[in-house]
Amino acid sequence: MKWEKQYRERTTNPMQTLNINILEKINSPQDVKKLSVSEMENLATEIRNTIINKVNLIGGHLGPDLGIVEATIAMHYVFNSPQDKFIFDVSHQCYPHKMLTGRKQGFIDPIGHPEISGYSNPAESEHDHFVIGHTSTSVTLATGVAKARDIKGEKYNVIALIGDGSLSGGEAFEGFNNAATLNSNFIIIVNDNEMSIAENQGGLYKNLSLLRETNGTAENNVFTAMGFDYYYLEDGNNVEKMIEVLKEIKDIDHPTVLHIHTLKGKGYKPAEEDKETYHWQLPGFLDKKDTGTPIETYDSITTDYIVKKKNEGEPIIAITAATPGAIGFSKEFRKELGEHYTDVGIAEQHAVGYASGIAQNGGKAILGVLSSFIQRSYDQLSQDLALNNSPATILVYWGGISNADMTHLQTFDIPLISNIPNIVYLAPTNKEEYLAMLDWSVKQNEHPVAIRVPASSVISTGIEDKTDYSILNKYKIEEQGQKVAILGLGNFLTLAKEVKRELAEKTNINATIINPRFITGIDTEMLDNLKQDHDLVITLEDGVLDGGFGEKIARYYGNSTMKVLNYGGKKEFTDRTPLSELYRRYRLTKEQIAEDVIKTLSL
Amino acid sequence: MKWEKQYRERTTNPMQTLNINILEKINSPQDVKKLSVSEMENLATEIRNTIINKVNLIGGHLGPDLGIVEATIAMHYVFNSPQDKFIFDVSHQCYPHKMLTGRKQGFIDPIGHPEISGYSNPAESEHDHFVIGHTSTSVTLATGVAKARDIKGEKYNVIALIGDGSLSGGEAFEGFNNAATLNSNFIIIVNDNEMSIAENQGGLYKNLSLLRETNGTAENNVFTAMGFDYYYLEDGNNVEKMIEVLKEIKDIDHPTVLHIHTLKGKGYKPAEEDKETYHWQLPGFLDKKDTGTPIETYDSITTDYIVKKKNEGEPIIAITAATPGAIGFSKEFRKELGEHYTDVGIAEQHAVGYASGIAQNGGKAILGVLSSFIQRSYDQLSQDLALNNSPATILVYWGGISNADMTHLQTFDIPLISNIPNIVYLAPTNKEEYLAMLDWSVKQNEHPVAIRVPASSVISTGIEDKTDYSILNKYKIEEQGQKVAILGLGNFLTLAKEVKRELAEKTNINATIINPRFITGIDTEMLDNLKQDHDLVITLEDGVLDGGFGEKIARYYGNSTMKVLNYGGKKEFTDRTPLSELYRRYRLTKEQIAEDVIKTLSL
Repeated sequence: MKWEKQYRERTTNPMQTLNINILEKINSPQDVKKLSVSEMENLATEIRNTIINKVNLIGGHLGPDLGIVEATIAMHYVFNSPQDKFIFDVSHQCYPHKMLTGRKQGFIDPIGHPEISGYSNPAESEHDHFVIGHTSTSVTLATGVAKARDIKGEKYNVIALIGDGSLSGGEAFEGFNNAATLNSNFIIIVNDNEMSIAENQGGLYKNLSLLRETNGTAENNVFTAMGFDYYYLEDGNNVEKMIEVLKEIKDIDHPTVLHIHTLKGKGYKPAEEDKETYHWQLPGFLDKKDTGTPIETYDSITTDYIVKKKNEGEPIIAITAATPGAIGFSKEFRKELGEHYTDVGIAEQHAVGYASGIAQNGGKAILGVLSSFIQRSYDQLSQDLALNNSPATILVYWGGISNADMTHLQTFDIPLISNIPNIVYLAPTNKEEYLAMLDWSVKQNEHPVAIRVPASSVISTGIEDKTDYSILNKYKIEEQGQKVAILGLGNFLTLAKEVKRELAEKTNINATIINPRFITGIDTEMLDNLKQDHDLVITLEDGVLDGGFGEKIARYYGNSTMKVLNYGGKKEFTDRTPLSELYRRYRLTKEQIAEDVIKTLSL
Repeated sequence: MKWEKQYRERTTNPMQTLNINILEKINSPQDVKKLSVSEMENLATEIRNTIINKVNLIGGHLGPDLGIVEATIAMHYVFNSPQDKFIFDVSHQCYPHKMLTGRKQGFIDPIGHPEISGYSNPAESEHDHFVIGHTSTSVTLATGVAKARDIKGEKYNVIALIGDGSLSGGEAFEGFNNAATLNSNFIIIVNDNEMSIAENQGGLYKNLSLLRETNGTAENNVFTAMGFDYYYLEDGNNVEKMIEVLKEIKDIDHPTVLHIHTLKGKGYKPAEEDKETYHWQLPGFLDKKDTGTPIETYDSITTDYIVKKKNEGEPIIAITAATPGAIGFSKEFRKELGEHYTDVGIAEQHAVGYASGIAQNGGKAILGVLSSFIQRSYDQLSQDLALNNSPATILVYWGGISNADMTHLQTFDIPLISNIPNIVYLAPTNKEEYLAMLDWSVKQNEHPVAIRVPASSVISTGIEDKTDYSILNKYKIEEQGQKVAILGLGNFLTLAKEVKRELAEKTNINATIINPRFITGIDTEMLDNLKQDHDLVITLEDGVLDGGFGEKIARYYGNSTMKVLNYGGKKEFTDRTPLSELYRRYRLTKEQIAEDVIKTLSL
């Protein structure tokens, strides 16, 4: 993993002496119940220091966890987990919960750090009820939990913790809407820290603001409007007051919202002051140095292009769904764009439909979104965008076989997007291709276009790509050879070239290298031509094989004698598995592929 | 199409003499502007009669359109379409709009009926801005339209019409949240007819009810809470009052909600009284006769099974997302189930997450959903359900190559569901298999299971299926032959048998017939065995080929000499195309397939 490498590369161990007298004694929620208020306050400080220390060592979510410490302690003090069930939204807020439920070693001891994931996970503890990583799910899942409890005639509290921006996701709203109809215990804690990942966006947050200003007394209240009982606590970082209000609503017999106001990043000054930057941090943030001249990345190439177009007078609208930082939409970029920029909040469905609406009305919409999150908008890609042939541009970032947590894999975007009619999904392999594709996409008015932004450092040919991408599904022969043709899609063109060299060394085969560029179509002419002097076609794609690019090539050659070997990821959820291990598992090394070629061709 | 057949089968033409003196003169919205109020009232009656007549002839949406007549007339009277842009949600409410925008012949003249679709469509008229069929999209799309208008410095009204239950969908909420941040003209008309397709569900509707009761004056108001200006009109079926309020908000310079109360089904007594039944009707409803003893369908098999399990004390929860009628969850069934039934409203994301929550807590969730709508919950299928291995049951109805409107194709569920890890997707081919799979799914606790309910009349073997479906990915050889093996998935096992007969007649090949049963996995043992005495494997699937079942078989055989022919739908949006035409286009007739076999094997 990225951090493992960075961790190993560190020459000094910056771990501070952790003063954890109280935390040391906490092995389960039962131990929390024995503490006095002042001990709990000290415990909060110890938990904070431990979080800061761990995140500094291996990276992770900082601000959200620092903000929710007291609330979590109070929840474990008042309720009886796991009988009472806590269901975390944006479960990156669950570090304190993990520390109080038998998993503190994963935070205290650097060796144990990788053992405990950054998200809730039933495999780790009976106190976690779901694997959760994408947001806006807690109320929905908890509604199901409560319904099953009721139908089985059981009694206990079901508590969903939501907040930190995830209220804006459609699934959250759908969950609220149904939860309100329960005739039984159901508690939603809305952790209102005035933030999403970047600033909170949208009309809903106006109401939260009004409620904060009126200490929860405003008559106009989205929660009571939907039929919830409602409690407000201004100081959600006060453990004593949190305990008081939780005791009041414990065992309540109807759907109830507890709205608490907390300080994101609390206890670490820089995180309190710059909430967006410290939402998540890479290792070593405590002694971060000036990193010198910024290097060119695909992020910076993108934002430079967008700014240029905007300055040329194009009706560009750059859109993000709450992850501007992850895709290089920096504060400077946003300021520069002004009205040409929209952060819709955590609302990917809306983001895609909004882009379609803009495109249909002559605007140039460019939505940047991570592979893992584009899957939150399949129906919008299909109905709002593709069916309307709206010429919006969707930039899919980070797509590829992934060493991420199982909730944030970036492996499934190709089957997701490429089997929808009308969308042109492109896989550039270098800077010049990427820019040419982006520019074509913005200029044209015929197709919805998605571009899989290369997930690597920048490769540049230095030669402008003058391809006319309006001629769809034309693959490019990078190197003409014979007998074996290797189709290296996007990120994996590099691997294709490595395999070619390996084959040249191990056999006398001079393989053909093809850069498909188009994920969503077959270059039948080229594939037919290959039949003349090739016996084997290899496809390499940086994503799950099932439903992906390679299978379509296999289908195309099904009635011929051409052999086809497809390489890519397996259909599985992996969890923080190092890329090197995944590549070996999927036979995605040049040695393994060469071995397979030799076997298949009986060389 | 179904209705075409039914139409042809009718022996008498029940078309009544349409009295359409005013409608006859309306060729564009300009003509509406010339009318007096009383003429508009008469026009409303004429439009109603025309709708009733057309729906009686060819089927379609009835109640929603009858309710929105006056509002539509008033909209065209006050605004200037297409400069001012109307964007319809659940665009099945757009019949009156179509009649006023040059398309009345499609409603008056039976020959023209099929020309005009039941949903908004820019290909038909400049007054339609999007192809829309799935719900909850209008505010999102309109927000994009308004944003593009603003960035280009243009001025006109953008009006989204939402309602009839679609407010509960997450995309609608996400749209409201972002729309509230516009600093410009934006009008949302909320058509509150107190209904979804069935009863309105959820907390949001409590607020609508409060607003109705207080004539829009209640302080607690979800719309103003989110920052919208707000207007209320109690009698949304009064054209004069509609005109008055629309004049008031025309050219308004900030986001505004106009909440109108209308009567679904207005003007047709049975539709006013039984809003659910008359939401949509098949042809001939005006002279509907007693249909005699109900026949057994896969719907009735399903509901009978659910009732039986519930009565045996299983913690069953049957779930629908607002389409109980389409899947046989009748009023009697719902009453029988009581607390064991949930209609979450139009909220498919929540429906899947809710099912997962129930399953994780020991309940037996059975979600019934149409193929076209399951795609509204990809992320929930992946994250909430599959990643958690929640043993819920998803019944996918109507899946297959489809003669429906392009917004309601049922063709994409296989690539959508089957490329997600952990889910077991099953394709039963007859009643006994279906019941065995359903029963296994409800009993087991290991896998999320989806079952593609056969889209045909019931086929029964009369022999109980005792297969142990916990042994995954075991295909079944229905008839052992040689040389050619035909894998007939689900609905298409019947076609496989037809092809076998055709081949037997045309060649001397006695083909093997295989019933895969499992969509989500490969029976490698069986596929390997086929290599011994088969040269060609054919796959038949009732859905889009791209990303589907057959391509995985082609991939598997890629390194062998086995030839593979994949048959299924093309990746395209079709629009009310007859099945016979689609089958011919996709070479899905026994004659075409036999022809291909002869060619491929050079017989």
